[in-house]
Amino acid sequence: MIGIALMGAGRMARVHAKAIGAAGGRLVTVYDVVESAAKSLAADTGASAARSTEEALDRSDVAAVLVVTSSNTHVDFIVKAVQAGKAVMCEKPLAPNLSEAQRCINVLGTLAGSVFLAFNRRFDPGHAELKKAIDQGEIGSLEQLTITSRDPAPPPLDYIPNSGGLFRDMMIHDFDMARWILGEEPISIYSCGSCLVDPQIGKLGDIDTACVTMVTQSGRQAVILNSRRAVYGYDQRIEAFGSAGMVVSDNPRATGVKRYSSASFGAPDRLFSFYMDRYGDSYRREIETFLRGAAAGTQPPVNAIDGLRTAYLAEAAGASLRHGRAIELKSNCEVTWND
Amino acid sequence: MIGIALMGAGRMARVHAKAIGAAGGRLVTVYDVVESAAKSLAADTGASAARSTEEALDRSDVAAVLVVTSSNTHVDFIVKAVQAGKAVMCEKPLAPNLSEAQRCINVLGTLAGSVFLAFNRRFDPGHAELKKAIDQGEIGSLEQLTITSRDPAPPPLDYIPNSGGLFRDMMIHDFDMARWILGEEPISIYSCGSCLVDPQIGKLGDIDTACVTMVTQSGRQAVILNSRRAVYGYDQRIEAFGSAGMVVSDNPRATGVKRYSSASFGAPDRLFSFYMDRYGDSYRREIETFLRGAAAGTQPPVNAIDGLRTAYLAEAAGASLRHGRAIELKSNCEVTWND
Amino acid sequence: MIGIALMGAGRMARVHAKAIGAAGGRLVTVYDVVESAAKSLAADTGASAARSTEEALDRSDVAAVLVVTSSNTHVDFIVKAVQAGKAVMCEKPLAPNLSEAQRCINVLGTLAGSVFLAFNRRFDPGHAELKKAIDQGEIGSLEQLTITSRDPAPPPLDYIPNSGGLFRDMMIHDFDMARWILGEEPISIYSCGSCLVDPQIGKLGDIDTACVTMVTQSGRQAVILNSRRAVYGYDQRIEAFGSAGMVVSDNPRATGVKRYSSASFGAPDRLFSFYMDRYGDSYRREIETFLRGAAAGTQPPVNAIDGLRTAYLAEAAGASLRHGRAIELKSNCEVTWND
Amino acid sequence: MIGIALMGAGRMARVHAKAIGAAGGRLVTVYDVVESAAKSLAADTGASAARSTEEALDRSDVAAVLVVTSSNTHVDFIVKAVQAGKAVMCEKPLAPNLSEAQRCINVLGTLAGSVFLAFNRRFDPGHAELKKAIDQGEIGSLEQLTITSRDPAPPPLDYIPNSGGLFRDMMIHDFDMARWILGEEPISIYSCGSCLVDPQIGKLGDIDTACVTMVTQSGRQAVILNSRRAVYGYDQRIEAFGSAGMVVSDNPRATGVKRYSSASFGAPDRLFSFYMDRYGDSYRREIETFLRGAAAGTQPPVNAIDGLRTAYLAEAAGASLRHGRAIELKSNCEVTWND
Repeated sequence: MIGIALMGAGRMARVHAKAIGAAGGRLVTVYDVVESAAKSLAADTGASAARSTEEALDRSDVAAVLVVTSSNTHVDFIVKAVQAGKAVMCEKPLAPNLSEAQRCINVLGTLAGSVFLAFNRRFDPGHAELKKAIDQGEIGSLEQLTITSRDPAPPPLDYIPNSGGLFRDMMIHDFDMARWILGEEPISIYSCGSCLVDPQIGKLGDIDTACVTMVTQSGRQAVILNSRRAVYGYDQRIEAFGSAGMVVSDNPRATGVKRYSSASFGAPDRLFSFYMDRYGDSYRREIETFLRGAAAGTQPPVNAIDGLRTAYLAEAAGASLRHGRAIELKSNCEVTWND
Repeated sequence: MIGIALMGAGRMARVHAKAIGAAGGRLVTVYDVVESAAKSLAADTGASAARSTEEALDRSDVAAVLVVTSSNTHVDFIVKAVQAGKAVMCEKPLAPNLSEAQRCINVLGTLAGSVFLAFNRRFDPGHAELKKAIDQGEIGSLEQLTITSRDPAPPPLDYIPNSGGLFRDMMIHDFDMARWILGEEPISIYSCGSCLVDPQIGKLGDIDTACVTMVTQSGRQAVILNSRRAVYGYDQRIEAFGSAGMVVSDNPRATGVKRYSSASFGAPDRLFSFYMDRYGDSYRREIETFLRGAAAGTQPPVNAIDGLRTAYLAEAAGASLRHGRAIELKSNCEVTWND
Repeated sequence: MIGIALMGAGRMARVHAKAIGAAGGRLVTVYDVVESAAKSLAADTGASAARSTEEALDRSDVAAVLVVTSSNTHVDFIVKAVQAGKAVMCEKPLAPNLSEAQRCINVLGTLAGSVFLAFNRRFDPGHAELKKAIDQGEIGSLEQLTITSRDPAPPPLDYIPNSGGLFRDMMIHDFDMARWILGEEPISIYSCGSCLVDPQIGKLGDIDTACVTMVTQSGRQAVILNSRRAVYGYDQRIEAFGSAGMVVSDNPRATGVKRYSSASFGAPDRLFSFYMDRYGDSYRREIETFLRGAAAGTQPPVNAIDGLRTAYLAEAAGASLRHGRAIELKSNCEVTWND
Repeated sequence: MIGIALMGAGRMARVHAKAIGAAGGRLVTVYDVVESAAKSLAADTGASAARSTEEALDRSDVAAVLVVTSSNTHVDFIVKAVQAGKAVMCEKPLAPNLSEAQRCINVLGTLAGSVFLAFNRRFDPGHAELKKAIDQGEIGSLEQLTITSRDPAPPPLDYIPNSGGLFRDMMIHDFDMARWILGEEPISIYSCGSCLVDPQIGKLGDIDTACVTMVTQSGRQAVILNSRRAVYGYDQRIEAFGSAGMVVSDNPRATGVKRYSSASFGAPDRLFSFYMDRYGDSYRREIETFLRGAAAGTQPPVNAIDGLRTAYLAEAAGASLRHGRAIELKSNCEVTWND
């Protein structure tokens, strides 16, 4: 079985470590700039803690590398790991901003397609079933796509300043979903953004409620709705409408229980609380896909180019909001706006 | 009981005549520019056919007038009926375009608020229940509103040229729903429009698939999705998301039947086929509301001003599509775009 | 249009009078042993009040008679109306007990099949859709049938002593549903009955919670669940399971509204409150069917024989409960138990 | 961590071995009367194969024993493992018939309550949520309970003769669910059984379609519906009705996907196919509960006495069917019928 080196030992690294276990993967070594974090995660997983990136990458029993460090270091880790001949999977986003994402693609050159970018929602059983239904022609030609993505509660305020903003931090997943399902690149984007959940978020220069519209060359329309707060739980839905039907990936439920009382008439059970439980299966299936591809030497289904294109959409969404107008999108990710 | 004169004897006039019957109203006379049509509907309903508008309006047993003629004659009929001292209800739209709607409001002056504009969806039991839930604070402060409105099939092609286009003909209902539920006027509007259902519609200068985004002063966001064709039936849904919850007015079903087979796992029964059955209850409740108000001499819940404002939104949506940019909206319905 | 005489002017007579109006029927005269009741209902409906049964039946403009009097007078009214050559529909039950039902059938002879017995649930759009699906072979051969029928709240206690008991008063509808859907007569019946809702009902010799099992010759199994109280509303469901699938007639909802909050996650709207609104459509469709058949001179889809057979099942269910054992059922409605 | 010995290496043993892995348990050794089966499973799980029961039980690193052998050997393995001082969990049924189950209880004496009987459905998240809702008083006092349990397809015919029959082999799970949820022992039972799926099953002396009714001392009613075939998948539902509401544990779905087409109007995704995927979570949670209890030295939530009582109900159900009458049940599991 392929040995894995995990770069990063923070919260998301632990999510991936757990998924590696569930997928039956073999975690060999953990590196983190904070040595104690690496040691702690290594101890919990039976792996060893590496003292340097090089030590981790030099190991002959490491064939695959998972980059789950802070966003601004992703590109460096990716490049090093690729150069060391390892199969690489990187947590989203590819880079903290568009120019850094572009630099990554330039450095990687033809190898950009071999870097697995961890847009885990593609591996969610429900979303994947929706995509499969579309690919098999169940709804004919796709015409309108609506993606609703609402967090249960906003992050701590001190997370906001370094998050890159809602478009780059949160909607990035939905941009990837939209591109994946549309099967075409958007040619225009228009954003609305408000600060309705917490005025402090607005004071930090960000928004918490957003609605983005995109159109493709053939006229397909996509809408993304984001909110940083949904009191009823983690709201993650996709609706794809086409010439021959509609397929919806609705929120799954904790259980199949339904309740009737004098005030409730068959209420379904609660939604999942957040990404760890809602998308738990997707992390496991993602790792399995990565490891299978690494073993077989095949190209990943989602790669660094997808990271570049989603970064481009996030940046353009921000520009649309600042300028109060629709933004024209180029197939080469060229910036058509002035700031 | 109040006697009613019906102006118009076409398809929609018959829908209203049926609703009058179901509501226990008393249809006294019918006028139509096509005398045979008036006679036919009069015969079917036990009313008399009037030979002129004046003959119908002069009757002392007529206290209420329903205008269901072709759109370009609405204003004249409204004005005459109001001047004759009758309670007036007019089928949507108020007028074929914004300038004619503005003229109507100017002529009516302070009486504009007394003309009942027949936006029937406000009287749909499901949509009304959603509105009531919001008004009662069930979802806290409204933040995002999504209105999906898809016809089962496009109208005959020869209907398109005189329809005024999708925004004025079809989305006009959704503009009214949006204003009603938002509780605030939008300050900007942005439209996407495509011709995906039938290229002939595009050749006639119209679109068949649209997505419109609006924002209010306080930052509420509204999205309207329209398509001229949904193979699964008449798709009419509203989703209102707020700080304390979400309320959805989902498609009602023909019956509560669910089916299980080797290919279907609890499929609900079919949607209603089109507005006559889907919104049948709303037409009856609308007439009841109109007649109750006419008897009591109270102001209608939806009036000619609402007709003006929806005409303004429809026109602005068209301008946004032509110009490829968001359009700023004024509270006085001022046109901010050049054509 | 056929003129109708209504025998009875109580609560159920008013339900039927309203249905006659909705169905576009012509109510000519009303008779009730309480003359003031007849006059009141006649005044409300524009009909005349008859001073005697004979006066009502002698009218040449009366071609159809609706019997909605107290149960113990049904047979006499039916016989008189049939002898007067009228089309007859009688509210359930046919008679207050089995022997009286048997007497009715004997007196009617070959005309028993021409008396429309008003088991209105057969005309409910949902239940009728379920029956149609089965008849069209959607579920293959029917194997198990579950009928759940729960009232929102028990009747006033003073209603109980003259009700005939739960099996004859309430489950009679479910016996008719079961026979209709099974497509075969049951050959055995077994009852469980408890008094869980109100001990006063038990003191009056009745039960309020029942579960009855029946089996047909070919081995089909049917279960009926009854309760006199369901706090969540009027619970009326049928589930039919077969060799090729399952079809369920689930509780319809007041509207398509769904609610989400911190305590509710997509709860559907309320059930209907009781039979007047839940089964309102069925009463209208039932009358339409009766009037169409009366006009055409065809046999009704449900007749006095069905009244006899349901009376037999109700009586056998009571015997099973008293004796604590399954009861063998005969195709000729012979009583196989001793009391 | 506690070391586990697995007795048995057949199909269900593999289900449990997988659950042990998912629960993070440590499988130490495997024994099977077929040595090659033990070796194969041991090899797949990294455990050793024991050559005898004694070898497995003598190991000091084995603190817990899982008995998943053929039913007729359960009692012997249980007794040996208990006598060896191990924590014991035994796959259902406790024994192939009532007298053997009674013998087991007699031999175990006061230790019967310490043997974990693997009625896995108690650990299903949905069924457990229903039970919790009832225990917390959500539905007031339980009054009617309906358990529907249908396999997707009948077992191979050669499985039938040694299965013990539908009541002992299949409905045994539902008897346990019923007792657990009712919170009271039934005092009577009545069975209907038919052979509708495959006449060959009938020729082998068994039934494939059953409906069983039970009543408790306080008048609670329970119905169990079983079929050996449901073309739409593994149908596993519980409905509990009470004085203050109703709670239903409905079939969970593979995903949250819903489909709309010209023939399908929001059809939910498929049911799970059979117990391995439908109840996969329950096996994992069951093992976790067992291991936690074994480590803590606490009594299991479901034990050998539950095995005896379900065996009693299965036997009484068979007697009811043979004799065509309700069977009185005794709290000491005394046989009240003659065969």
